[in-house]
Amino acid sequence: MSGSCGSAGRRPLSNSPVTVFVCTACGQAAQPDSPEGSDGQRLFSALSAEAARFPDITIADVDCLAVCETPVVIAFSAPGKWSYVIGGADPARDAGDILAAATAVAASPHGVPAIKDRPPFFKKGVVSRIPPLPSRA
Amino acid sequence: MSGSCGSAGRRPLSNSPVTVFVCTACGQAAQPDSPEGSDGQRLFSALSAEAARFPDITIADVDCLAVCETPVVIAFSAPGKWSYVIGGADPARDAGDILAAATAVAASPHGVPAIKDRPPFFKKGVVSRIPPLPSRA
Repeated sequence: MSGSCGSAGRRPLSNSPVTVFVCTACGQAAQPDSPEGSDGQRLFSALSAEAARFPDITIADVDCLAVCETPVVIAFSAPGKWSYVIGGADPARDAGDILAAATAVAASPHGVPAIKDRPPFFKKGVVSRIPPLPSRA
Repeated sequence: MSGSCGSAGRRPLSNSPVTVFVCTACGQAAQPDSPEGSDGQRLFSALSAEAARFPDITIADVDCLAVCETPVVIAFSAPGKWSYVIGGADPARDAGDILAAATAVAASPHGVPAIKDRPPFFKKGVVSRIPPLPSRA
């Protein structure tokens, strides 16, 4: 079964839960009086509105992922897989691609999506990645 | 769902085992013929030689943490706690401080060491951090 997903509108085939963390502090200083909140809050809202269609994807807001230079910063994390921190996500452009990438993470055995399954924001914005904990830990 | 520090959902684990990941690809291109290997390999060796004194600390080598701009890159990771990726670690200078920081991570309830417990390499080099997975995941 292929779990790759090139379209956010297609029902995903996930085979493990993935959490997408969204830094809601991102962009707050640039627009402190915006009624929609920070860029990070806008992205969190956009993802949350779509996430009901993706039962294996959890959207979680976080205060700070410590990458203030490249807002909006998100992270993909799943049990027993590599985690990725990615900067430069655009709330007006990338929500669909983020859900598609989360679907690719869910479908990949180690949390490392194939290059063909990485949308532009993912290819351009990787800040860091962390392996899963060894079985001893 | 909120993943803010202190409310990520999973019960925090104090004094839990901590894994220190060391990127052994770091510095390889700069010294391809070094008999001691890359800067990352030197740091991995230095940490491994000391780690027997720290039963709750595991030293693990990894191929790449995707932060090639600031070698040597390491990461602290522990079950149910925040993970930190930190760049600029010096194999000739920082091994002791890295083990001290890992000890601070192990002792902190959420994996976020107090500022006073962060050695210089930690204060200067944070690349990113990732919260623990929510309890649902």
